[in-house]
Amino acid sequence: MAEKITPREIDYSQWYIDIVLNAKLADYSPVKGSMVIRPRGYAIWEKIRDEFDRRFKETGHENAYFPLLIPMSFLKKEAEHVEGFAPELAVVTHGGGEELEEPYCIRPTSETIIWAMYRNWIQSWRDLPLLINQWANVMRWEKRTRLFLRTSEFLWQEGHTAHETEKEAREETLRILEIYRDVVERCLAVPVVAGMKSESEKFAGAVETYTIEAMMQDKKALQAGTSHFLGQNFARAFDVQFQNRQGQLDYVWATSWGVSTRLIGAVIMTHSDDKGLVLPPTLSPEDAVIIPIYRNDSKAAVIAYAKKLEADLKTAGFKVVLDIDDSSSPGWKFTEWELRGTPVRIEIGPRDIKSNQIVMVRRDTGEKLTALSTEAASKLKELHNLIQSSLFERAQSFREKNTEPISDLGGLIEFFGTETAGTEGAPGGFAEALWCGSAACEASIKEKTKATIRCLPLGKQDHIEGTCAICGDPAKYQAIFARNY
Amino acid sequence: MAEKITPREIDYSQWYIDIVLNAKLADYSPVKGSMVIRPRGYAIWEKIRDEFDRRFKETGHENAYFPLLIPMSFLKKEAEHVEGFAPELAVVTHGGGEELEEPYCIRPTSETIIWAMYRNWIQSWRDLPLLINQWANVMRWEKRTRLFLRTSEFLWQEGHTAHETEKEAREETLRILEIYRDVVERCLAVPVVAGMKSESEKFAGAVETYTIEAMMQDKKALQAGTSHFLGQNFARAFDVQFQNRQGQLDYVWATSWGVSTRLIGAVIMTHSDDKGLVLPPTLSPEDAVIIPIYRNDSKAAVIAYAKKLEADLKTAGFKVVLDIDDSSSPGWKFTEWELRGTPVRIEIGPRDIKSNQIVMVRRDTGEKLTALSTEAASKLKELHNLIQSSLFERAQSFREKNTEPISDLGGLIEFFGTETAGTEGAPGGFAEALWCGSAACEASIKEKTKATIRCLPLGKQDHIEGTCAICGDPAKYQAIFARNY
Repeated sequence: MAEKITPREIDYSQWYIDIVLNAKLADYSPVKGSMVIRPRGYAIWEKIRDEFDRRFKETGHENAYFPLLIPMSFLKKEAEHVEGFAPELAVVTHGGGEELEEPYCIRPTSETIIWAMYRNWIQSWRDLPLLINQWANVMRWEKRTRLFLRTSEFLWQEGHTAHETEKEAREETLRILEIYRDVVERCLAVPVVAGMKSESEKFAGAVETYTIEAMMQDKKALQAGTSHFLGQNFARAFDVQFQNRQGQLDYVWATSWGVSTRLIGAVIMTHSDDKGLVLPPTLSPEDAVIIPIYRNDSKAAVIAYAKKLEADLKTAGFKVVLDIDDSSSPGWKFTEWELRGTPVRIEIGPRDIKSNQIVMVRRDTGEKLTALSTEAASKLKELHNLIQSSLFERAQSFREKNTEPISDLGGLIEFFGTETAGTEGAPGGFAEALWCGSAACEASIKEKTKATIRCLPLGKQDHIEGTCAICGDPAKYQAIFARNY
Repeated sequence: MAEKITPREIDYSQWYIDIVLNAKLADYSPVKGSMVIRPRGYAIWEKIRDEFDRRFKETGHENAYFPLLIPMSFLKKEAEHVEGFAPELAVVTHGGGEELEEPYCIRPTSETIIWAMYRNWIQSWRDLPLLINQWANVMRWEKRTRLFLRTSEFLWQEGHTAHETEKEAREETLRILEIYRDVVERCLAVPVVAGMKSESEKFAGAVETYTIEAMMQDKKALQAGTSHFLGQNFARAFDVQFQNRQGQLDYVWATSWGVSTRLIGAVIMTHSDDKGLVLPPTLSPEDAVIIPIYRNDSKAAVIAYAKKLEADLKTAGFKVVLDIDDSSSPGWKFTEWELRGTPVRIEIGPRDIKSNQIVMVRRDTGEKLTALSTEAASKLKELHNLIQSSLFERAQSFREKNTEPISDLGGLIEFFGTETAGTEGAPGGFAEALWCGSAACEASIKEKTKATIRCLPLGKQDHIEGTCAICGDPAKYQAIFARNY
C-alpha cells in the first residue's frame, strides 16, 4: 500500500492528495469545485464539531438555522461586504419552474440574512447579548480547488453575536479566538499563532479580523480560524437599533467568527508522513486496531485472545477495531491501518498468549512496546496522551525551527527565496519582521516573494521600536510574513 | 400571555402558527418559502437528530457529506425521479460571475449525486453493504408554506444504502422504518401507523415506499418519515454494477430513507394546547423551571432555597432554569413557561422553606404535587416518565377514538363530510377501509372528500376478504384513508 503515497520530498501537493484519497477522507465529485466528504473524513469532522460546539454552549451560545438563499439586494447593503464576496457567488435565478423576480445567491456567509432577522428580534438592551451560532454549508465559487483546503462548497460554523457595547463585542471577538486556539492546539494538536489581520487581509465588512495561523510541513501558513469585530457596520446596514440602558436608541455592536472543514486539511498536513495519515488520538474514529498474527494451528487461540482484549478495551470505553479479515496478511493490514492514521496498533501472536502480553505500536513514531494484557486499557490511555502531546510538540518545534526574525528587505527575499517562490517545498517559513503599516509595503513584498502578512501577533505589539523591514520607515507593528494556503 | 395563542376551536391553523412564533421555535424569513429555525426550535431538532443518529450508528451506518448542487443531467437519468422533482427545483445558472455551461439544481434529495459516487466506490460484493447517511439541507420550491411542515428549504437526514441482494435491501428498508417508529413513538411520544404507500403516493423512483403516519389534533394525517426500497432503479440509471459472490456482474440493490424538521411540526400539533407548546420531556431544552415566589421580606431566603434546589438538580444531571427576573411577576412567568412547553414547573414560596417542600406542576395536565425538597430529583425523574408515557397514551387514544372501520362509499363520504372537506377542524380521522388497488378509486375518493390513502398498514394485508369500499370490486388491501398535511 505504501506506494500509493507520493513522498513529501518528491511532490508535497500530490502527497497531500494521495493521503486524502487513499485514507478515504474525501473524494472528487462530478460537481465542479465541490468535494464529497467520505465517512472517515466526516467522522473526524464530527469530532472537531463536537469539541467546538460544547465550548460554544458552555459560553452561552445557542445554535440556530438561517436560510441557505440570500436575496442579492441584502448583500449589497454593506458596501465592503458585497465587494468582497460578489466575485465568488453562486446565483439562483429560477425556482419552481419560473424565473425569480429577484435572484438569490447561495450564502457565502450569513451576516446579511442574520442581521435582517436581528432587526426583528432586538428592541431593547434586555434582548442583548444575542449569541447565536450556525452549523451550515456555504458556497464560494472557486476555479482552482484543493480537497478540504479550498472548495466551492464547504461545511463550517458561523457565529453571529449582537452586543450592547463596543467593549462587550471586542471581548467576545477575543473570547472566541481563544476557544479556537484552545481546540486547535489541544484537540487537533496543531500549534497556532494568534493575531490580528492587516487591513488588506481582513474580512469584507469587519472593523478588525483576528486569526489563528498554523505552519504546515511545507512551511506555508494556513489560516485555521477567524474572529471578526464588526463594529456597528451591519447594524447600520440593516438598521438594527436598540433602546440602551439610558433609554436612547443606539446601533448594536457585532461580531462574527468561523472555522470550517479546512481544519481537516490542517490536521492532515501538520501530522501525516510518507506512510499516510497521522491523526491525534482525540480525532481518530477508532482508538486502536488489534491485528492478530497466527498460523493455522494457532488461529483459534489467538483470535479468542484478541476477542477477549477487544471486549476488555470496549468495556474500558475505547473504540477498537479487531481486524480478522482472512483475505489479507498481517503485513498488508499494518500498512493499511498506518495509511488510515489509527494512533495505536496492537499486535497479538501465539507467543504473546503464553506470556500474557500484547505489543503496542505507535503510529506517529513507529515505536513498539510490550505490555501485560491486563494493563492494556491503562497503557492505551497513557499512549494516547503521549501521542497527543508529542504530535503537538513536534509541530511546535518544527514551526520554531522555521521561524526567523528578519530586519530588512534583503533578508526577507533571501528567506523566502525568489527563484522557487510559490512552489511547494520552497524555502521559507514564518518571518518575524517589523512593518510600518502601509499597504504598499504589503503589496511590494507579496509581489517579490508571494509572502503576505499572516497576522500581527497578539501580545507583541507594545513598545514597537525600529524600522519597517520593507521600506525603512518607522515601524508600527510586529508582523509575521509567510506564504500561505 | 395566554391571549397570544388563538384557541384551537377558533382557528386550528392560526393556533399552530401562534405557538411556533410565540414559543420562538421559528420565524418567517425574507426569503420566500424559507423559515428561520430559532434557538429553541433548533435545540429540539438537535435532540431529535441525536436520537436518530445514535440508532443509525448502532445499526452500522456512517455519516458523510455530498455536494449541495446536482447537475441537471443527473436528475434526468431516472425517468420517474426527474418527473417527480422537476417542478420543485431551484436552479443555479451563474457561478463566479459567469453563466454555467450546465445548470445545477439545489438538491431536492441526493439519490442521483450519491449513486454517481457509488459507481466509483462499489466494485465487488466485498464493498457491500454500503450504509451511508447524510444530515443536510434540501430544497423543494413551495408556493404555499407552513412553518416546519412545508417550507422550500428544510433540514433532514437522508440514508442511502447499497446491498448485494434484494432480500437485504428489503430488510434494510423495514429496519429503518422500525427505527423511525421507535424514535417517533418513544422520544417524540407521537403514535404512528406503519405501512406501505400506494403506487400513486410512493417516492419518485422507488419500487415501494414505506411510511409512518401520525394523526394530528385536527384529525388530519401527517407523514412523519419514509423508507424506500429502490430496487435496482438507481443502480441501472447510474450503471452501478458489482461482482457478486458467484463472480458475475449484477446491479446493486438500494434503499433510501428520510425524516426532516417536519417532525417538530408533528410534535407541536400532537401535544400542544391552548396555553401553548407542550413538549415530551425527552425533547425539552430544559427539564424544569424553578420559579421563586416571595415578598420583599422573604426574598433572600426563598432565592437561597431556590438556588440550593437548582444546584441539587443540576448535580443530579437535570437541566433546570431558575427564573429570578425581578421585572416579571410569578403569574406572568407561569404563563410564559407554559407557552414555551417546559414539562415541569417548580414553585417555591416562603412556606415551602419551613416545611422543606417544593410544589411541582405538570405542564401537560396542570396537576400539582408537593414533594420534599430532598426528593426533588427522584420526583422529577418520575414525573418525566409519567408525562412522557401519558402524552403518548393520550395521543394514542385520540387516534383510536377517531379511527373507524368503514365499508362503503356512503360511509366514507359521511365520515369525511363533504361540506367542510379540506377545512381545519373538519370531521374525519382515519378511515379503515378495504381497497381494490386501483388508482381510479383513489382519485375518486380524493375528489369527493380530499382524503387519500395514507398507507396500507403492515401486518394487516393477509387474507383480505371483502369488497373495495369505493367501487365494490374484490378488495386486495386494507387501507387507511385520511386528509393530510
